[in-house]
Amino acid sequence: MSDFSIRRLDAGTADFSSELDTLLAWESVADTRVEATVADILREVKARGDAAVIEYTNRFDRRELQQAQEFCLQREDLKAALERIPADKRSALEAAAERVRSYHEHQLQASWQYQEADGTVLGQQITAMERVGIYVPGGKASYPSSVLMNAIPARVAGVDEILMVVPAPDNQLSDLVLAAAAIAGVDKVFTIGGAQAVAALAYGTEAVARVDKIVGPGNIFVASAKRAVFGQVAIDMIAGPSEILVICDGETDPDWIAMDLLSQAEHDEQAQSILLSPDAGFLNAVEQSLQKLLADLPREEIASRSLADRGALILVRDIEQAIEVSNRIAPEHLEVSVDTPEQYLPKIRHAGAIFLGRYTAEALGDYCAGPNHVLPTSGTARFSSPLGVYDFQKRSSIIFCSPQGADTLGRVAATLAKGEGLDAHARSAEYRVRETSD
Amino acid sequence: MSDFSIRRLDAGTADFSSELDTLLAWESVADTRVEATVADILREVKARGDAAVIEYTNRFDRRELQQAQEFCLQREDLKAALERIPADKRSALEAAAERVRSYHEHQLQASWQYQEADGTVLGQQITAMERVGIYVPGGKASYPSSVLMNAIPARVAGVDEILMVVPAPDNQLSDLVLAAAAIAGVDKVFTIGGAQAVAALAYGTEAVARVDKIVGPGNIFVASAKRAVFGQVAIDMIAGPSEILVICDGETDPDWIAMDLLSQAEHDEQAQSILLSPDAGFLNAVEQSLQKLLADLPREEIASRSLADRGALILVRDIEQAIEVSNRIAPEHLEVSVDTPEQYLPKIRHAGAIFLGRYTAEALGDYCAGPNHVLPTSGTARFSSPLGVYDFQKRSSIIFCSPQGADTLGRVAATLAKGEGLDAHARSAEYRVRETSD
Repeated sequence: MSDFSIRRLDAGTADFSSELDTLLAWESVADTRVEATVADILREVKARGDAAVIEYTNRFDRRELQQAQEFCLQREDLKAALERIPADKRSALEAAAERVRSYHEHQLQASWQYQEADGTVLGQQITAMERVGIYVPGGKASYPSSVLMNAIPARVAGVDEILMVVPAPDNQLSDLVLAAAAIAGVDKVFTIGGAQAVAALAYGTEAVARVDKIVGPGNIFVASAKRAVFGQVAIDMIAGPSEILVICDGETDPDWIAMDLLSQAEHDEQAQSILLSPDAGFLNAVEQSLQKLLADLPREEIASRSLADRGALILVRDIEQAIEVSNRIAPEHLEVSVDTPEQYLPKIRHAGAIFLGRYTAEALGDYCAGPNHVLPTSGTARFSSPLGVYDFQKRSSIIFCSPQGADTLGRVAATLAKGEGLDAHARSAEYRVRETSD
Repeated sequence: MSDFSIRRLDAGTADFSSELDTLLAWESVADTRVEATVADILREVKARGDAAVIEYTNRFDRRELQQAQEFCLQREDLKAALERIPADKRSALEAAAERVRSYHEHQLQASWQYQEADGTVLGQQITAMERVGIYVPGGKASYPSSVLMNAIPARVAGVDEILMVVPAPDNQLSDLVLAAAAIAGVDKVFTIGGAQAVAALAYGTEAVARVDKIVGPGNIFVASAKRAVFGQVAIDMIAGPSEILVICDGETDPDWIAMDLLSQAEHDEQAQSILLSPDAGFLNAVEQSLQKLLADLPREEIASRSLADRGALILVRDIEQAIEVSNRIAPEHLEVSVDTPEQYLPKIRHAGAIFLGRYTAEALGDYCAGPNHVLPTSGTARFSSPLGVYDFQKRSSIIFCSPQGADTLGRVAATLAKGEGLDAHARSAEYRVRETSD
């Protein structure tokens, strides 16, 4: 059994604010050697296409690919994997997919228009992207739930074609991941990964069609490649380690809360689990539960390192103060384990996902509650949202001026254009003014 | 008078596709020397705050700042500028602001929830960002319309505080820009620019509070700095040169269409103006109009260079083919200058803004029609949208499980968690299962 420790803080002390800064400090490493390697890979794949993808894949994933078609899987291959997996796993994946789909259908946005008194029509047309690419990590971090969460919103949005890349190091591929791709409606899978897969999706190769957006988590090479191709294609946020913040009044079973904290801590040594409670005795009880429950957790070593390095049990004055602290942290996952938790919603300003009440374990949201598990980490909930259907739709403004509308607007536009020294703008507007007035 | 020339293409020829690729080729220059300079500036401002901002500002903008308060303007300063500008400019700015505000109010998104049969509640809460920063270029590219277009959506979204940075090279500042800031509801202006201003907004200094998102155009140093701080804060898309694509059936006055093309071309030598028409005679007429109208345009030199290098008049089979070409280009601005243009909307897949009918000059959209003039360039309309209220709001998922809901979901989650080797996730879900069943 590992040594167990977790930080204890008190929000009422003078140095709490600086202690909290220390607790939250985390910065993604910008590694210039990684960036240089990634720049080489991107350039090679852009210039040489599949040949470069095959070389890098053979080198990094220890494979012996001869030609591109060997890394291409079609819908039939995915369906075959779906037939191979155990029945309970299949029905759980299908149940989860159905709930995720149903929730995300609420996010669909519709085009709109309105007409002004003079006949001018303004609006916004919403359309889906044509083709998107989903990155799925290989090996142990290859999660079927992640395939569902990334692909289903794209499918609901109406994306024409969904491509997925997943590396197969030493030719190992997860049937669960392929089965999830079949269920989620992925069109094609390429068994490639790393910066070379990101490059193939961003620039296109002979075998891989260029996509409009790349989503999904990956290691530092993948993250660095996504950052480099940003602008050429759209990307999702670069994810940091997962975090949970639990606010509890002290009335939930301490074992439940401890296990919720452990479910983050087991992800990764850098994951962060924080509990806020106004009940010091409850914090003690949870601390004891943590120690007890850790002992027979398969991933005990990772979880205890995460709790020791980045965890905290924090005493607060009351639930209101807990929410203030939470808003400052802008957590990825926020559990509000209290009576009538919905009363606090209007005060919660920044959080990726909010889990209300004693029965809403964060883990339910990871798999099957319906909302997406791709959430803003490291305080980025201040400015970003869960992955959603809106990430795969885009908007076009619509302007249709009536002759009268063009007359009115043309005068204003011409005045402003002249103020900015743009004469052709002014004259283009004024042509439409002449028609109906003076 | 400059020599006039513009490319003529025919969409019916065998090599049209590759000619179109050549026409569209444009890539933002990734300059490693610029990146290194920017990295230095970001590091210095992060470490030394205002002192570094002052040093860079004095060096690059030829100023003699002694302390940070000299680069800070308050609401009173903005209101004073508003009083100083000519009455016609003021009323044009106010009219434009009112229309932009009214249009953007249609973009406000509302929180939503729904309850399932077993009592579980799912939803999404929408909140505004707390503080955003707007970058406004200095000197000749300092456009008051751009202040309105960037600040008003943030104000409509409910952002608490809007900061603006605008450099004042040689102590020159535009009253029109400050007046637009007053009208748009900007809270504070800092007369700084370049990478040092982006750094101040992203990291915060003694005088400049850290923001959640940075929007607005800038030179290569600004674009490079925005790319580098992406993730620390949100940023908008990195803009390329402006473009217009006009589809015309040949029945609009060729002078009107020519002036619409010139209104893009006068922006910048790299701007792109393309006309598609099935009427070869009309293409000839527009070519003659361009030559004639160019002659007395103050920005003749820029516009003729833009037309020669990047412009094109393209013969198409019919309007349907024109729309196919347009979808491939995914233009920033698309004018559909035909009868009953609204019939083509369902076929238009990718465009930043769509201007329908003969009276809707693109210039009206630049200033006062209502929709935003910050639009996706260089084909990025394939995956991005006009700047809007949605860029300053973000979402939090809401999950509130009933005991029965937690029981149902807990079983599915536990099965999937075990499949992924995450035991604490499974046990956290199973605690909530025990309560109500077996």
